Amino acid sequence: MKAITLLGSTGSIGTQTLDIVAQHPDQFRIVGLAAGRNVEMLAAQIRQFKPSIAAICDMDKLSELKEAIADLDPQPIILAGEEGIVEVARYGDAESVVTGIVGCAGLLPTIAAIEAGKDIALANKETLIAGGPVVLPLVEKHGIKLLPADSEHSAIFQCLQGVPERGLRRILLTASGGSFRDLPVEKLANVTVADALKHPNWTMGRKITIDSATLMNKGLEVIEAHYLFGLDYDRIDIVIHPQSIIHSLIELQDTSVLAQLGWADMRLPLLYAMSYPDRIYTDWKQLDLVEIGSLTFKAPDHDKYPCMQLAYSAGRAGGSMPAVLNAANEQAVALFLEEKIRFLDIPRCIELVCDRHSSDNCSTPSLDDIVAADRWARQEVLTASEDLSKDDRLITLR
Amino acid sequence: MKAITLLGSTGSIGTQTLDIVAQHPDQFRIVGLAAGRNVEMLAAQIRQFKPSIAAICDMDKLSELKEAIADLDPQPIILAGEEGIVEVARYGDAESVVTGIVGCAGLLPTIAAIEAGKDIALANKETLIAGGPVVLPLVEKHGIKLLPADSEHSAIFQCLQGVPERGLRRILLTASGGSFRDLPVEKLANVTVADALKHPNWTMGRKITIDSATLMNKGLEVIEAHYLFGLDYDRIDIVIHPQSIIHSLIELQDTSVLAQLGWADMRLPLLYAMSYPDRIYTDWKQLDLVEIGSLTFKAPDHDKYPCMQLAYSAGRAGGSMPAVLNAANEQAVALFLEEKIRFLDIPRCIELVCDRHSSDNCSTPSLDDIVAADRWARQEVLTASEDLSKDDRLITLR
Repeated sequence: MKAITLLGSTGSIGTQTLDIVAQHPDQFRIVGLAAGRNVEMLAAQIRQFKPSIAAICDMDKLSELKEAIADLDPQPIILAGEEGIVEVARYGDAESVVTGIVGCAGLLPTIAAIEAGKDIALANKETLIAGGPVVLPLVEKHGIKLLPADSEHSAIFQCLQGVPERGLRRILLTASGGSFRDLPVEKLANVTVADALKHPNWTMGRKITIDSATLMNKGLEVIEAHYLFGLDYDRIDIVIHPQSIIHSLIELQDTSVLAQLGWADMRLPLLYAMSYPDRIYTDWKQLDLVEIGSLTFKAPDHDKYPCMQLAYSAGRAGGSMPAVLNAANEQAVALFLEEKIRFLDIPRCIELVCDRHSSDNCSTPSLDDIVAADRWARQEVLTASEDLSKDDRLITLR
Repeated sequence: MKAITLLGSTGSIGTQTLDIVAQHPDQFRIVGLAAGRNVEMLAAQIRQFKPSIAAICDMDKLSELKEAIADLDPQPIILAGEEGIVEVARYGDAESVVTGIVGCAGLLPTIAAIEAGKDIALANKETLIAGGPVVLPLVEKHGIKLLPADSEHSAIFQCLQGVPERGLRRILLTASGGSFRDLPVEKLANVTVADALKHPNWTMGRKITIDSATLMNKGLEVIEAHYLFGLDYDRIDIVIHPQSIIHSLIELQDTSVLAQLGWADMRLPLLYAMSYPDRIYTDWKQLDLVEIGSLTFKAPDHDKYPCMQLAYSAGRAGGSMPAVLNAANEQAVALFLEEKIRFLDIPRCIELVCDRHSSDNCSTPSLDDIVAADRWARQEVLTASEDLSKDDRLITLR
């Protein structure tokens, strides 16, 4: 029986994690739950999974949450705010913390969990992308395991089990191609939020679905793979694989290639991160290659999707640049979801902001440096987006 | 530097093994070489690789071999006959013996190598298919490693590295579909030897190419997989994959699937069996999924290819039945290559002979039982093939 704490329990990753726990009550128990602002769902989860501690990020919802579970006996500890989340992350005898908080908000609680000696089932990309230079030394220092829980890095991690040291030669991340994979590049200028949210294969959160449509998700994964598996950026490639059945591949020194396959279901990498190194029997639908019939591959189009190259450049720059890239992307995606900028403005904003950061890039940033770079980048995107609107007006006037 | 002995050095597996040794002189050296009857090639190999011992199976060629290398100094030990091969197999400080002898002739030398404590790079299917009940206890007793060197079992073996005990749920062997994969079943009756020898993907020996055309190769691999990986026959499946890029797959308890991919080049599994557990850098062409474009899959057609089911049945019967299946197949393929029986007579002969053996099947056969069953089956195929001709005449007369 493994004791698990779950951060971001009401999001897409969180609910799938709890599905797994519900299906395997003999394997997992929940110690702590933390959510953003969905009181109703969090209260229902507390009733079902009986954690010892729970927290809601939105301070204003604290009393509502307490009321909603007032009849429970025993009462769990109930906290609120970012500090409440951090407290849940480090609390009690949880062996493993599933970090399903989207965006940079996941960074501080993850660090708290690492410092409390807990293994991390990492479904939050930003922990490494922004926090890599700070988090990796902590992982080393506290001797905990960083277990990727997203499908691509889990695929690589699964394939790497049993590969000897220095046996890895190349990582090949597969990309579905996102919502616009079949759309000609010239039509991208006018796509809507609703268009971008229609992902062909995966059911995911809104922010990640947009990242998938810009292929920034793959760029961010390249950076995460660099930190997780220690490979140079020259050795991390992307291939478009529309069926999302092969979740990624590794090439070894002798040219042998290993791949991990499965249906497009986030629960599988989550389960492996939670059960590692065991393989727990599930009654999920078994993969059927005959039913699938065909797996196809094509080269990624960097002209159509400039976000990938922005990520490679930020990754190679290192230091606080990936944090800036990530924060700029989060802010730009938020503006797009609010219909304040257009789809193609997302990479434009990010590029402008990364360019402005290049003279200030800090090669060995502290956590404060990273948090500052993150805040600066978000603000800078707001400025950049206004500049873009002015440019557009100028273009229209001509 | 690994010391290697190579049995079957002038065959398809043998020459590819020596290609690898020639390409990696810092990694491998040759202790012993054994071949069937190709004196000229064996002499050239002795000159190039300077083994301490060599043998030719054909006794009549001994003096010719000795003459051909008379000028060498120092002289290697030169032997002949089956006993000579066995002596090479057990000789000296070779850590690993590559068994590239086609057919049941490889069984005795492989047992000798195991008894001498050498790891086996297994490119000879019959060692396990016929000899499984005898060989596996010896592998256990002498604590040696049985390293599959054919592409499918190597793929499974590669995928299994790092999989926890009892983690394996299913094996999925891929099959190219052989020379006749695009031929309608009704046209199989009249195919020629030349037709059958045209394999679409792999360059292999004649016998194995015919096995690939009947899909008996896959049936035999099912039995070998059963012995190598300890899975029930219900958990070993076959899928047709015409591109021969995915060399096989495993499914784990949690439904995750791992696959090994590579170009259709026997040298890769050979190299891994020779270098295991290391991964040696090679300058071979790297896999390019974009170049390949598409990987396809379909269900195997058991009506068109009855050999697969014959193999499953023989495997499930166990004991000496797989030895009978294998010997009957070798003999039937030989008759087909001599144009004495037709393509569709191959499974007919095998089925008749296996049926006749079913009442005599020995559940825990000794090596002598296996050798006797093998001899009996070969003779029985000759009888069965005559019966088939008589049947045909009857059919013609009606």
